[in-house]
Amino acid sequence: MFFKAEHLQKTGAFKYRGAAYAISRLPAGTTAVATHSSGNHGAALSAAARDRGMAAHIVVPRGANAAKLAAIKAFGGIVHVCAPNQQAREEGLAELITEGWSPIPPYDDDNIISGQGTAALELLHEQLDLDTLITPVGGGGLLSGTLLATLTRPTPLAVFGAEPAGADDTFRSLQAGRRLTDGHEPQTVADGLRALVGRRNFALIQTHADGVITVSDDEINAAMKLIWRHLKQVVEPSAATVLAAVLKEPNRFAGRRIGLILSGGNIDMDALLL
Amino acid sequence: MFFKAEHLQKTGAFKYRGAAYAISRLPAGTTAVATHSSGNHGAALSAAARDRGMAAHIVVPRGANAAKLAAIKAFGGIVHVCAPNQQAREEGLAELITEGWSPIPPYDDDNIISGQGTAALELLHEQLDLDTLITPVGGGGLLSGTLLATLTRPTPLAVFGAEPAGADDTFRSLQAGRRLTDGHEPQTVADGLRALVGRRNFALIQTHADGVITVSDDEINAAMKLIWRHLKQVVEPSAATVLAAVLKEPNRFAGRRIGLILSGGNIDMDALLL
Repeated sequence: MFFKAEHLQKTGAFKYRGAAYAISRLPAGTTAVATHSSGNHGAALSAAARDRGMAAHIVVPRGANAAKLAAIKAFGGIVHVCAPNQQAREEGLAELITEGWSPIPPYDDDNIISGQGTAALELLHEQLDLDTLITPVGGGGLLSGTLLATLTRPTPLAVFGAEPAGADDTFRSLQAGRRLTDGHEPQTVADGLRALVGRRNFALIQTHADGVITVSDDEINAAMKLIWRHLKQVVEPSAATVLAAVLKEPNRFAGRRIGLILSGGNIDMDALLL
Repeated sequence: MFFKAEHLQKTGAFKYRGAAYAISRLPAGTTAVATHSSGNHGAALSAAARDRGMAAHIVVPRGANAAKLAAIKAFGGIVHVCAPNQQAREEGLAELITEGWSPIPPYDDDNIISGQGTAALELLHEQLDLDTLITPVGGGGLLSGTLLATLTRPTPLAVFGAEPAGADDTFRSLQAGRRLTDGHEPQTVADGLRALVGRRNFALIQTHADGVITVSDDEINAAMKLIWRHLKQVVEPSAATVLAAVLKEPNRFAGRRIGLILSGGNIDMDALLL
């Protein structure tokens, strides 16, 4: 197993890739951007906006991870709190857009997807002869970007998503053959993966992914502790889903050379540590 | 600040350096080694002995960190439990030596000290233009080895030890001008630094060190969380003492280029995590 250490990325998560790329594509003269985010995209957008002298307005659902909220503020983002559901997030963002600020969606966006794909591109450029990639899946930006990145390779790779059982809309949508949007009430410790899979993201996943593996919160926590203990790296629960998926299906992955994207490391220390 | 990541060292701590070097100096035909250790030296000696086809017998005080105990066993070490005080540790080791096994002391030993000094040597070879080094101090192997390493440099460096206030025998010994051995009843979260400073170690520290800074358990815990949060690295409380020392004395260290040796990363997850 080979780990891509996105917890060491700027702002502590892969999200900076998409945010920076999307901002780089905005028309000259843009002064402010806006988004909704449970945390990592918000922090990334705040940092990427500040790097270009723009303001960033972030709609954050109540109950979001305190570390991620603090990061948004630390990177200069302006926080707008909303109710913790998809509809409230989208309405909150729509309101900000009426102010004339440029929306940068968290995942359902071509530029965001392209930017997130650079994590897998870098990993594949390391010449590790990988035959398999696994990324977490929440909104699907990282997984769909990864799929695009592998399409450029001469040899095909198997690409899987790892999804919390308590937020398994992508898994269920693949089973159903269409994107299911009703009754999405995520319950998982992996706070970065609570979003509903995006439209563009699901289309790419349905066409190109080799499958989505669901993992329970217990399996996520056990994998997270393994990574902390043996790699000595602080990753967040969302990141640990990829190792949990391998541990859950050892036969499927036996003998393979697997690239695992550790998506981020922004955990709430005070909530986790005694 | 520049961090030497000994938590990523084999066995998760700098201790492998001294153990491997000391074992490399044993006479041919040696079949078993013995030591006493609260954990990291025991795991390191077990691993270094196994690498050379030897057995390792480790006297471990009751109440030792569970992660470190598990590591000793995982590396093939044979554990002998004793009462949690210095006398019981030394008596336990003396008993093992009567079996004909070669003692490898945890810190009060020329070879161990030389081996531990290689961490600082490597850091200094990185050409970082450091003017200051700080290491944790427990038995004093790392600090005294670091002092030896700096003596070979063309330009002098300031070298400090960071010691838990609840196990401050080195600090008090420096104040007294002699090594104090009475009434050592360490009470600190930094379980790797509970040992009494060694004789050879204290002599080197007294002659060459620029000082020892004591830090409270609260300061250690706060520094550890900072490292976890911002460097995303899992270090143990003992390692965090070095950052705690800088944070405690900002004026002393302002404007300096400081090398901090993060001594290890073997924390007891189940005791620390909710």
